[in-house]
Amino acid sequence: MTVLALTGGVGGAKLALGLAHVMSPEDVVFLVNTGDDFEHFGLHISPDVDTLVYTLADRANKETGWGREDETWSFESSMKQLGGDTWFRLGDKDLATHVYRSSLLSTGSTLTEATQEIAHSFQIEHRVLPMSDDPVRTMVATNEGILPFQDYFVRRQCEPTVTGIEYQGGAAARLNPELNLDSISKVILCPSNPYLSIDPLLSISELAGFLRTTSVPVVAVSPIVKGLALKGPTAKMMRELGIQPSATTVASHYQDLISGFVLDQEDANHSAEINRMGLRTAEFQTIMRTFDDRVQLASDVLGFCETLSSD
Amino acid sequence: MTVLALTGGVGGAKLALGLAHVMSPEDVVFLVNTGDDFEHFGLHISPDVDTLVYTLADRANKETGWGREDETWSFESSMKQLGGDTWFRLGDKDLATHVYRSSLLSTGSTLTEATQEIAHSFQIEHRVLPMSDDPVRTMVATNEGILPFQDYFVRRQCEPTVTGIEYQGGAAARLNPELNLDSISKVILCPSNPYLSIDPLLSISELAGFLRTTSVPVVAVSPIVKGLALKGPTAKMMRELGIQPSATTVASHYQDLISGFVLDQEDANHSAEINRMGLRTAEFQTIMRTFDDRVQLASDVLGFCETLSSD
Repeated sequence: MTVLALTGGVGGAKLALGLAHVMSPEDVVFLVNTGDDFEHFGLHISPDVDTLVYTLADRANKETGWGREDETWSFESSMKQLGGDTWFRLGDKDLATHVYRSSLLSTGSTLTEATQEIAHSFQIEHRVLPMSDDPVRTMVATNEGILPFQDYFVRRQCEPTVTGIEYQGGAAARLNPELNLDSISKVILCPSNPYLSIDPLLSISELAGFLRTTSVPVVAVSPIVKGLALKGPTAKMMRELGIQPSATTVASHYQDLISGFVLDQEDANHSAEINRMGLRTAEFQTIMRTFDDRVQLASDVLGFCETLSSD
Repeated sequence: MTVLALTGGVGGAKLALGLAHVMSPEDVVFLVNTGDDFEHFGLHISPDVDTLVYTLADRANKETGWGREDETWSFESSMKQLGGDTWFRLGDKDLATHVYRSSLLSTGSTLTEATQEIAHSFQIEHRVLPMSDDPVRTMVATNEGILPFQDYFVRRQCEPTVTGIEYQGGAAARLNPELNLDSISKVILCPSNPYLSIDPLLSISELAGFLRTTSVPVVAVSPIVKGLALKGPTAKMMRELGIQPSATTVASHYQDLISGFVLDQEDANHSAEINRMGLRTAEFQTIMRTFDDRVQLASDVLGFCETLSSD
């Protein structure tokens, strides 16, 4: 039986690293958001897949939260001199991943196959699956119009006011064909942005349907601690969407799909209200500053899942 | 009136640099071999165009004869780690040119437009035109079978024995549309490999027809000095094709298309025989070690053309 972990950007990858440390490769599968994939210079870029691969391989740039460690920037400086776009930063090493993936895709590999080949070359034994081989594209409706995700997130630095979000292609996308839902014994929604990282995954109807009907524990870990997002625009977006950023509102967002909710120990005062939604709760230290924090939270969340399994 | 210079790789680019130094941008146009263009990782690579652009911009790597100066290799090392092909060396800065060109082509630019944009960003005022916007691909017949040019030249390091050469697409390719043959007052075939650099240009029937029938001086500069090629596989290839490598055999190769032939001063003993082909000759120092050598040879060749014009 397998644990299914749904993950997006940096926060999700941190918990995934912890899970990979405490679980053997055959016991967990990481299903990664591809809603912020995009084509840039004709290259297929999969930011969340790369973040997870680089994190699991201990090659991620821990300071920036994106890209690779010990990166060089000759390509970018030359591209700037050529007059090409440089708003999406492409390090020389990171670029090899994009070029290699694009080359594999152009010669007939699926995104799943390309991802497996890349993960394998980084010596990653755990399974990293893009959520779908079909394109799903997160589009952000803002006061400046509808923006493709990377335009909103990187080019415009999340400055426009968000009025809605859409996952183009989500309804038609098939769930990753390598994922065997019958083998899943627990599901963990990693602490990623609900709207930009997890909801694109949930836009795939087979996955949402499974979570809604399964009897296995489905546990979300709050990306909001004391009303603030640890990283990224989650809290700002929630306010713009008219939602008070809090552990409670995140739990409410996932309410129909989950059976348990992990909130930070500092947010224990939210538990009662979340329990009233019919959800079991657990409070842990969810802020993962160190490697040990990641391993500890992974272990804590798995332990919480166990208690739900035995219900 | 305009001088048309036909050029291929490193040797041609050296003379082109000399010509650019002694002629103003409106007085010369460089028509560049694209027979060794190829797709690699889905990127459109134009090695001879890049060699010329980098040379004219003083950004060429003078030691290797290809690529850019002060190059870095992070992309290559990462690609190697990914298991991707690294037989064609791609520096980080050089890669920006390929990615930018490919991106322009994929959004509808012609190769001419992409080349002009790249040359412009390198502050090159002289006109650099790919020989055609249509694909022409040099294929090398060898004892190991028919090899695409880069497979022969780079991957196999010119080791296979050459039995013939073919320019796929040449017959159907239209000459670069920006080139106005009516404005041409002199033509210089730069000292590039006749088979791999100049003949692909001549495979375009409009260009070969023009050279065959024009009354303006057409002068070739020998890439062979004292039976040896200054650079690259020219002499080896000639021997394999059953041709004695010499200034005379190069002149004979171009005989129907040219009116004058420049040979090295060390090869003066070949002049009489070349004259008997009906060609005028001039002997100069054709070995271009320094920048001044390039300027001097450019000036000498132009002077020789003048004497032919006044015939």
